[in-house]
Amino acid sequence: MKIIVDGMGGDNAPLAVLQGCAQAVTEYGVEIIITGKKQELERLMEENEISRQNISIIDAPTVISMEDDPISVVKDKRNSSMGLAFDLLKNGDGDAMLSAGNTGALLTGATLIVKRIDGVKRAALAPVIPNKSGLVMLIDSGATVDCRPEFLEQYGLMGSVYMKKMYDITNPRVGLANNGTEDCKGTDLYIASNKLLRENKNINFVGNVEGRGLMLGECDVYVSDGFTGNLILKTVEGTSLFFLDFMKKLFGKSIISKLAAVLVMKDIKAFKKKSDYKEIGGAALLGISKPVIKAHGSSDAKAIKNAINQAKIFASSEIIEEISENIKQR
Amino acid sequence: MKIIVDGMGGDNAPLAVLQGCAQAVTEYGVEIIITGKKQELERLMEENEISRQNISIIDAPTVISMEDDPISVVKDKRNSSMGLAFDLLKNGDGDAMLSAGNTGALLTGATLIVKRIDGVKRAALAPVIPNKSGLVMLIDSGATVDCRPEFLEQYGLMGSVYMKKMYDITNPRVGLANNGTEDCKGTDLYIASNKLLRENKNINFVGNVEGRGLMLGECDVYVSDGFTGNLILKTVEGTSLFFLDFMKKLFGKSIISKLAAVLVMKDIKAFKKKSDYKEIGGAALLGISKPVIKAHGSSDAKAIKNAINQAKIFASSEIIEEISENIKQR
Repeated sequence: MKIIVDGMGGDNAPLAVLQGCAQAVTEYGVEIIITGKKQELERLMEENEISRQNISIIDAPTVISMEDDPISVVKDKRNSSMGLAFDLLKNGDGDAMLSAGNTGALLTGATLIVKRIDGVKRAALAPVIPNKSGLVMLIDSGATVDCRPEFLEQYGLMGSVYMKKMYDITNPRVGLANNGTEDCKGTDLYIASNKLLRENKNINFVGNVEGRGLMLGECDVYVSDGFTGNLILKTVEGTSLFFLDFMKKLFGKSIISKLAAVLVMKDIKAFKKKSDYKEIGGAALLGISKPVIKAHGSSDAKAIKNAINQAKIFASSEIIEEISENIKQR
Repeated sequence: MKIIVDGMGGDNAPLAVLQGCAQAVTEYGVEIIITGKKQELERLMEENEISRQNISIIDAPTVISMEDDPISVVKDKRNSSMGLAFDLLKNGDGDAMLSAGNTGALLTGATLIVKRIDGVKRAALAPVIPNKSGLVMLIDSGATVDCRPEFLEQYGLMGSVYMKKMYDITNPRVGLANNGTEDCKGTDLYIASNKLLRENKNINFVGNVEGRGLMLGECDVYVSDGFTGNLILKTVEGTSLFFLDFMKKLFGKSIISKLAAVLVMKDIKAFKKKSDYKEIGGAALLGISKPVIKAHGSSDAKAIKNAINQAKIFASSEIIEEISENIKQR
């Protein structure tokens, strides 16, 4: 299994990316192709004693920054670390591709260079987050702001296949984000999407699910347009940070509270690990004809390593094949 | 100060409502008019030794249930506890009105019986929630699903006046919910709303604020359409419950963890109190020509008591007058 990694994407690139790649080689037995500024990458690997075993580097003269226009990946920055990674993926030089860089450029490059699965109308950004009952996918969390009902129907289908194949969930419950549980609730987009999701025989649609249900475990796939989904995802992140900040302060306040912390530290660590996006990996870009993973922009080496593992499982799970078949049936 | 209370609205009505009213009379020196089934209310007060001092009861033969069509408040259930409460408010028999009942009916009744402030295009449901830096208002959290940019501009204005008057925030920072901070981000509705909010001289607009910023304190008023706002509010609730559930389990697991709980209990209680909606009261219905408060459906006596206090401050703060002046200036 060969994973293509954009060596220059993300807040902690390239060092954290290199470290994550080396860890993944050891832990998951994958081969890695890293794209990026070859001299810099080689120097960093040497300086930090990062093993080059099963890691090859493809030189990319430019880098797409977070501020760059997404379209640059297919225009003036076609030869960037991200652009060349897409070329490698497209040409079959690797089985999956991963980047922690500019999300817009990743979407643009995936769609225009690697292309969507035949019949898929829009690719979707689909992170999986921990909730009360285990894990839930939020699809779309920001790829497409203006959606049509057919997009949301396909999100439900693609998310369903992914959760089944990646996490062995037999018949994933697909819920539609909404401001009420009745089918008539929501905007015209959501009323029409509800109807399409309900009629699709390949989807185990559990109906509209309110915002509470996302974290309380009422479904395995939570479908929304990209505008709403992005706000929901970031609201979960912000609320989580609010609570983690409180707990940090709670246990750091005095000698007595630090003692309390010691008593429950094991459980807190287990919870933090469970609710840590770095453990889960990145967000899958569903609807693209080859596996593409968007790692969190602030990924450290561990997050990169886990995202590589996710890419490996994604590539070996026939997810894209099954999505393709399901889309054709419609 | 006289507060009109829908005695039959909410999951714990009428007993919790009666208890909350009696507590509010003692604590805040208000007079209360309760609407509802007079015989039942009188019996409950007697059985539970609830003082009738400064509480008068107006008999209402019917009750609007959570399942009733909102429009029933002005049609077949005009003589319900909620319908009659609106009549009392409209006729000046009280200074503010409060209900924990059917939200849709409350909105409909407020709009059709009490009426909106001249020039206000839509009333908005505006809960105030605790976040990292103190409090933030979420407006609209579900009154109007299909919005126009002018609605969101007015939400920013109304929320601004409310936060200034209720919480002494000098120049409330108004943020627009969005999937990115740049002015060009979001759907057409949000791009146009951004422009109107930015141009309005009576609004201290801080620009688009992503979902993370809501709970991390990036603004005092968080503006969105009612569909998105409802999902955001409920996502905060669900994520909070997810964390509170973890903490409960953490500290209840063993004798050792129970000991840890004892050591930090004071701080946990303070945090719970700070982050408890029951402490804050209810959601103001902004844009209506008289003060109307929607208490949480699951309100207990304490939540009702606090919502009555909120209604009292709302009614004495000239919020409606200032909103009216600001709207006229446009």
